[in-house]
Amino acid sequence: MEKSWVITDKKKVYSNKIFDVVSFCSTSPNKNISAEFYVLETNEWVNVIPITPEGMVILVKQHRHGINQESLELPGGVVKHTGETRLLDSAKAELREETGFTSDNWTYQGKVSANPAILNNWSYAFVAENVVKTHPLELDPEEDIETIEVHIHQLPKLIQSGQIHHSIMVAAIGCFFMNKEK
Amino acid sequence: MEKSWVITDKKKVYSNKIFDVVSFCSTSPNKNISAEFYVLETNEWVNVIPITPEGMVILVKQHRHGINQESLELPGGVVKHTGETRLLDSAKAELREETGFTSDNWTYQGKVSANPAILNNWSYAFVAENVVKTHPLELDPEEDIETIEVHIHQLPKLIQSGQIHHSIMVAAIGCFFMNKEK
Repeated sequence: MEKSWVITDKKKVYSNKIFDVVSFCSTSPNKNISAEFYVLETNEWVNVIPITPEGMVILVKQHRHGINQESLELPGGVVKHTGETRLLDSAKAELREETGFTSDNWTYQGKVSANPAILNNWSYAFVAENVVKTHPLELDPEEDIETIEVHIHQLPKLIQSGQIHHSIMVAAIGCFFMNKEK
Repeated sequence: MEKSWVITDKKKVYSNKIFDVVSFCSTSPNKNISAEFYVLETNEWVNVIPITPEGMVILVKQHRHGINQESLELPGGVVKHTGETRLLDSAKAELREETGFTSDNWTYQGKVSANPAILNNWSYAFVAENVVKTHPLELDPEEDIETIEVHIHQLPKLIQSGQIHHSIMVAAIGCFFMNKEK
């Protein structure tokens, strides 16, 4: 177990509606490092691998403003619910709102740190099996999302060809296939 | 091919030694969306899957200030080189500086977008085979890194148990195993 680093002088140095930036001094337990660090503080995220009874996966394609180009992704988004079941509740809501698909067969797959060097948040992945289209889309005003169905076995090729490139989505899909190989 | 969104009013709203934050208005090609977005602009990154002739992988364990806890990762870091070979040059330098290992057998594996919703940068993954310890460590003043060797087949279990959790590292390892399965 790692000994705790000591954080001092933590302050919010920038804020907008999506994230805050904080700065602080952190000193290592053996005190040979003491430096100023900058961290972007933002929300937890969830994403879903939604699989139909026929083995098709429902993906969403949208413009991503960080890279100013399209990104083919798993459904998901910011955790908006609260309480103990907030992750699953948010995953169910994101799948329904972005694709209109729902499921009564959910499995928690695991979590990844978004980028522990400069971000504070974690992203949680779920697998939803036997998804069916039951609802209309409910997109946020800033969302323009195209739904695309691909066979589950096409996912590694879509990553290799660069069509799926969002690191958190690639991590979730990689874990899905690594878990299957056990 | 996606039509271009039109960006206006782009301005730097915050800056530190690691990253900038910019804001801008972006309008969709069909003009049904026009909104303000915030993006963190930072450097390209590289990481390396370094494999010894015996099938051991060299990992690095370090404290990560975004989550204030330890993280077991592939060697890697910010691209500091320039020019056409900057990615490979930086990957070679990061491996040597963080672990003391070098290789003459490098393969480019692919890239992922760090988080295309709010970050502008990409991370590039390399596989280095037949790595051997040839150099002393050269750590930055703020780095306190422990080197750990595990067998390549242990990587999926280290992800499943949560010891390797950095999304970009999980993505790189997931791609490595998905590519092998072809």
